Amino acid sequence: ERIRDYGIEIGVIPTGTQNAITDVSGVKVGHTTLVKGDSIRTGVTAILPHGGNIFQQKVPAAVFVGNGFGKLAGSTQVNELGNIETPIILTNTLSVATAMDAVIKYTLRQKGNENVRSVNAVVGETNDGYLNDIRGQHVKTRDVLSAINNATENNAQEGNIGAGTGTVCFGYKGGIGTSSRKLPGSLGGYTVGVLVQANFGGVLQIAGINVGKELSRFAFSDQLLNNVDGSCMIVVATDAPLDHRNLDRLAKRAFMGLAKTGGIASNGSGDYIIAFSTAKETQIAYKTTHLLKQEVVANDYMSPLFMAAIEATEEAILNALFTAKATTGKNNRKIEALPVSKVLDILKEHRIIKKK
Amino acid sequence: ERIRDYGIEIGVIPTGTQNAITDVSGVKVGHTTLVKGDSIRTGVTAILPHGGNIFQQKVPAAVFVGNGFGKLAGSTQVNELGNIETPIILTNTLSVATAMDAVIKYTLRQKGNENVRSVNAVVGETNDGYLNDIRGQHVKTRDVLSAINNATENNAQEGNIGAGTGTVCFGYKGGIGTSSRKLPGSLGGYTVGVLVQANFGGVLQIAGINVGKELSRFAFSDQLLNNVDGSCMIVVATDAPLDHRNLDRLAKRAFMGLAKTGGIASNGSGDYIIAFSTAKETQIAYKTTHLLKQEVVANDYMSPLFMAAIEATEEAILNALFTAKATTGKNNRKIEALPVSKVLDILKEHRIIKKK
Amino acid sequence: ERIRDYGIEIGVIPTGTQNAITDVSGVKVGHTTLVKGDSIRTGVTAILPHGGNIFQQKVPAAVFVGNGFGKLAGSTQVNELGNIETPIILTNTLSVATAMDAVIKYTLRQKGNENVRSVNAVVGETNDGYLNDIRGQHVKTRDVLSAINNATENNAQEGNIGAGTGTVCFGYKGGIGTSSRKLPGSLGGYTVGVLVQANFGGVLQIAGINVGKELSRFAFSDQLLNNVDGSCMIVVATDAPLDHRNLDRLAKRAFMGLAKTGGIASNGSGDYIIAFSTAKETQIAYKTTHLLKQEVVANDYMSPLFMAAIEATEEAILNALFTAKATTGKNNRKIEALPVSKVLDILKEHRIIKKK
Amino acid sequence: ERIRDYGIEIGVIPTGTQNAITDVSGVKVGHTTLVKGDSIRTGVTAILPHGGNIFQQKVPAAVFVGNGFGKLAGSTQVNELGNIETPIILTNTLSVATAMDAVIKYTLRQKGNENVRSVNAVVGETNDGYLNDIRGQHVKTRDVLSAINNATENNAQEGNIGAGTGTVCFGYKGGIGTSSRKLPGSLGGYTVGVLVQANFGGVLQIAGINVGKELSRFAFSDQLLNNVDGSCMIVVATDAPLDHRNLDRLAKRAFMGLAKTGGIASNGSGDYIIAFSTAKETQIAYKTTHLLKQEVVANDYMSPLFMAAIEATEEAILNALFTAKATTGKNNRKIEALPVSKVLDILKEHRIIKKK
Repeated sequence: ERIRDYGIEIGVIPTGTQNAITDVSGVKVGHTTLVKGDSIRTGVTAILPHGGNIFQQKVPAAVFVGNGFGKLAGSTQVNELGNIETPIILTNTLSVATAMDAVIKYTLRQKGNENVRSVNAVVGETNDGYLNDIRGQHVKTRDVLSAINNATENNAQEGNIGAGTGTVCFGYKGGIGTSSRKLPGSLGGYTVGVLVQANFGGVLQIAGINVGKELSRFAFSDQLLNNVDGSCMIVVATDAPLDHRNLDRLAKRAFMGLAKTGGIASNGSGDYIIAFSTAKETQIAYKTTHLLKQEVVANDYMSPLFMAAIEATEEAILNALFTAKATTGKNNRKIEALPVSKVLDILKEHRIIKKK
Repeated sequence: ERIRDYGIEIGVIPTGTQNAITDVSGVKVGHTTLVKGDSIRTGVTAILPHGGNIFQQKVPAAVFVGNGFGKLAGSTQVNELGNIETPIILTNTLSVATAMDAVIKYTLRQKGNENVRSVNAVVGETNDGYLNDIRGQHVKTRDVLSAINNATENNAQEGNIGAGTGTVCFGYKGGIGTSSRKLPGSLGGYTVGVLVQANFGGVLQIAGINVGKELSRFAFSDQLLNNVDGSCMIVVATDAPLDHRNLDRLAKRAFMGLAKTGGIASNGSGDYIIAFSTAKETQIAYKTTHLLKQEVVANDYMSPLFMAAIEATEEAILNALFTAKATTGKNNRKIEALPVSKVLDILKEHRIIKKK
Repeated sequence: ERIRDYGIEIGVIPTGTQNAITDVSGVKVGHTTLVKGDSIRTGVTAILPHGGNIFQQKVPAAVFVGNGFGKLAGSTQVNELGNIETPIILTNTLSVATAMDAVIKYTLRQKGNENVRSVNAVVGETNDGYLNDIRGQHVKTRDVLSAINNATENNAQEGNIGAGTGTVCFGYKGGIGTSSRKLPGSLGGYTVGVLVQANFGGVLQIAGINVGKELSRFAFSDQLLNNVDGSCMIVVATDAPLDHRNLDRLAKRAFMGLAKTGGIASNGSGDYIIAFSTAKETQIAYKTTHLLKQEVVANDYMSPLFMAAIEATEEAILNALFTAKATTGKNNRKIEALPVSKVLDILKEHRIIKKK
Repeated sequence: ERIRDYGIEIGVIPTGTQNAITDVSGVKVGHTTLVKGDSIRTGVTAILPHGGNIFQQKVPAAVFVGNGFGKLAGSTQVNELGNIETPIILTNTLSVATAMDAVIKYTLRQKGNENVRSVNAVVGETNDGYLNDIRGQHVKTRDVLSAINNATENNAQEGNIGAGTGTVCFGYKGGIGTSSRKLPGSLGGYTVGVLVQANFGGVLQIAGINVGKELSRFAFSDQLLNNVDGSCMIVVATDAPLDHRNLDRLAKRAFMGLAKTGGIASNGSGDYIIAFSTAKETQIAYKTTHLLKQEVVANDYMSPLFMAAIEATEEAILNALFTAKATTGKNNRKIEALPVSKVLDILKEHRIIKKK
């Protein structure tokens, strides 16, 4: 069950229908989950800005670096040209190259791309090496292609799936989480959807309550045990027609959402936010005309979108924690799931949960 | 009274003695408060990295731009050279030029600076134009010099003072706030101190509790009334020996602290963080030798400092709200103080306040 | 006489009619030159993106920092919001505050701006303290207003004028210089105009010829005398409809033009480029609608504009050198003009000058 | 023969012994050249900051993005942590993933790295798809490992070698080029070495002379034929003890050197500069102590290093052009070598060549 199923509301803006990144029309998500033997606990998650040939119809985009201890591929071209031209892939740290290569192959082989000689693959990662035999590099090209090819518009799966299979978050099992916000018509009526690969630490806060502290389980609480490092990859999609500059600003707000869960963007964390717009009128053809006609949201109307990105990111991370299951992996290491029952008790004690 | 006086703890790290930026040894703070007639509600706050000639003994520094709708002076040189060479001044938006000029005059006149021909004044601002006759530009050179000259090492004043005299925060009276954290010896034993000029909006959260929502007073809750813009200037001081790069990272974490109070860094917000180190061994003489000997904190030991900056920023903002008083200003506009009694009731209801 | 008057061509793209920034339709330039007594050698240069109320009709803009040892005001807001809302002012280092304040006053007083409470003044500077009594801060508010009010669309004055009155460049008298390029219709037909305040050092190259070396006058050639510091402010205007992102890229190319004159962006140099578009359809009203309709040049068509910016910057700097006159200033210091006759001999020897 | 062999001097600072990046003590360079059949014209170049285990002894580093139409891997971590932990690899655009993966495998397998679970591979590229069957992805893991393993301290090979095998520059055959500068003792005595993978366009200037124009062969000179795109990867090494911030500034100066060859950093160009210091005292152990002792060059002493980087970059690019040989590749396309004889005639006509 997701956090909202327990009557816990994050923020003040209504969610989209699925409360998922796929509420942003056209966005597709696919996962490949690799759980084999004692020590393979990893996978691939693919996010497609739209269902067509992305290289031929690029989308405006931006990458914001929260903390750059990470191996994200493709960020400099995204920020220079202001667009993304491939599916976005998330996987583990030592499989970024495999995923890049798979995205290149996928793009080269697409119909219409027969003469393409340059592909900017966007691949993010977090390090699942505590549970997963990451040095074994078990993600293969076919796993990446599979995640892309299986992507659908109504995939709101969360937890131990895809790139979240082996992740750890605030000392508990992390994973994939997603959420969305839909602004009222008076504020533009846009949808903002977020998907996270949650694998980081700090002092867990749920709906503001300092659960990490109450559970006595947080960064630096125990000098011997603390491990705040990890990473959080955040993908933000919106149907609002935004240019690169305002997508960069939107991405930065997702970083604020991470902060609200108690994340601290520790030294060893790779916290990156990739934001893109799916608005048809802002798509950029591979072979453009001299002038691009655009209709983009003006600066003065950005704040509600900012708030939506903050809220959806916070909730996506919490969803990852609530849905992930206890996992045993490499060297028989075990990571517990968030103790939901205890957490609910804490939230009840704090009158965060209203219904019952 | 400050938030901690009510038994509310923010975060998990202990505070410094004063729970103020001046806990960082050598840092001095001074204020000039301008309250005159019906419509002058403004002022100046000065933060001095040390008590000596700052131009002759510069300190390592960095500026992080959270949201750049603001007129901060001096950021490009701070980030290019990695240091600050003047007192840091906070004031109102239309008085930045006056403050710059005052800092230049102050520096030119200092003993030892007789031949100085270039001064990089660092001046931040927020817009107090709702309560203050900002177009009247009532801050004068003498007011800035007074704030510098009156600065002391044990000034932990907060609320309607100095540059916080006319500010508004989450729809309530904002102002100056400060807080600090002292790491245990095992994590370096360093102090991180923060001072804020709080003048922004969003959905107020206090110790995580969504007070703004419970008071039905938050951004976009009322289409006619919402005003989330404003700004937040944040100054972060530490005695940890940090170079520019790690100060930049530290500054970015203060932005995360702002997020935890419910700030959204709205489009019209000027959210800047200025971070500096007071460690003697990292000071840079005006006339340096060819090589600078430094001993700086390694990346791997930065995370506790990051957490300290997040916590101290959150608490500094809340202190500003708790200490600021209701103010009537320009055009007879009135901004109420945070309704502390109601807020405490909410926090009690949520079992955030333990003692009592 | 300007460099082209001697038959020297820089680059391969034709110039505009005036070979000046004012070839970009609507751009106005004005100067206030302050030469008084023995030691006042300074001034103000104003560049207006258009002749209307700039605050009410902002223009897309970007600031690129070549080397940030400088006090440029306004850059963070320009880059956050992507626009400029005031005249651009150039002056000396210690007069930036005065110029900011003058721009604020100018803007507050403009018809239609009666309720404006926030103004982002863009003010650049270089340090003329060798010839000018810079510590005396002789630029006054009226001097700045005068430069703005006297600005015209056909002002191509150069050399010892305005903000270039006291500048030094490659050890010779520097000053204001300007140039432009007009692309052929097949490449868009756009005009790119550049104005520089040249006050920097390195090894002077004219039309590629290493004149500094041949004259034995260059940075580090004499350990006792070398002074490569200074600064170069570069303003780039274009009628091409560009958004912030592509203006930022255009600005970066102007920095490449500086390199071609032998500039090295020394440690003490404040090399900033401010680029803006005058295209009507990209202007941003103070009170915008929710969506902005734009028609902007696509990435794939930017390269000719890049080349134009490089060429015009190189030529503008050389024009500053060719037109500036020898000047005696503070402490009876004298800076010679570029020895044009010797330079022409060198260029003839190298067969750079073709006509005769 | 290299450009200096013809009596052409670039700049004013003396070169190092080899006039190559390997003049920086400890730096090793290796190449794998792939020329097979009609259409394989590509390769790999490896630059090793030192001969030890780079992951265990990281070097301070920075990446500057000149123009980001490129797929450089690793830049965000380099800039966040301020260091490089692997060999630097250059190859073709569609082989970056292969190279990343090879570097990861190389690092994982190194003695002492048995528990390493995170590797930040730094891989740059240019697009050799005109001469090379780039879509065939002919670079294999073994080719990358071979370049690393064959790297030596006295490798100054240039032209059609390694990652330069299939590159095109200013319409002529490009390739690998290298150069160095050694500052006099009075300026620090440091060496700056540069290696480039030259594959870009513009208007070729040699020693300042507009050779491209005289040969009527330059960007946009022929609307049908122009192809200014491509890329230039630039690696800058120095034995000066520099921290990340000053390495970033140094990298930016290499971009100025590119400008002096007539490069314009066209829209489709991936122009990146990777700079690192080899100074022993600035190396960062994988497991550091809490405090790092450093002795770094002060800002005020950076300018000579800046000039050295500019000069060495310009000469490295010209060396690539002078040493590259005419090449026939994919689809029987042929790229001529720089017509050295004609070029020398032009330079003689312009009295650039003195001896002879």
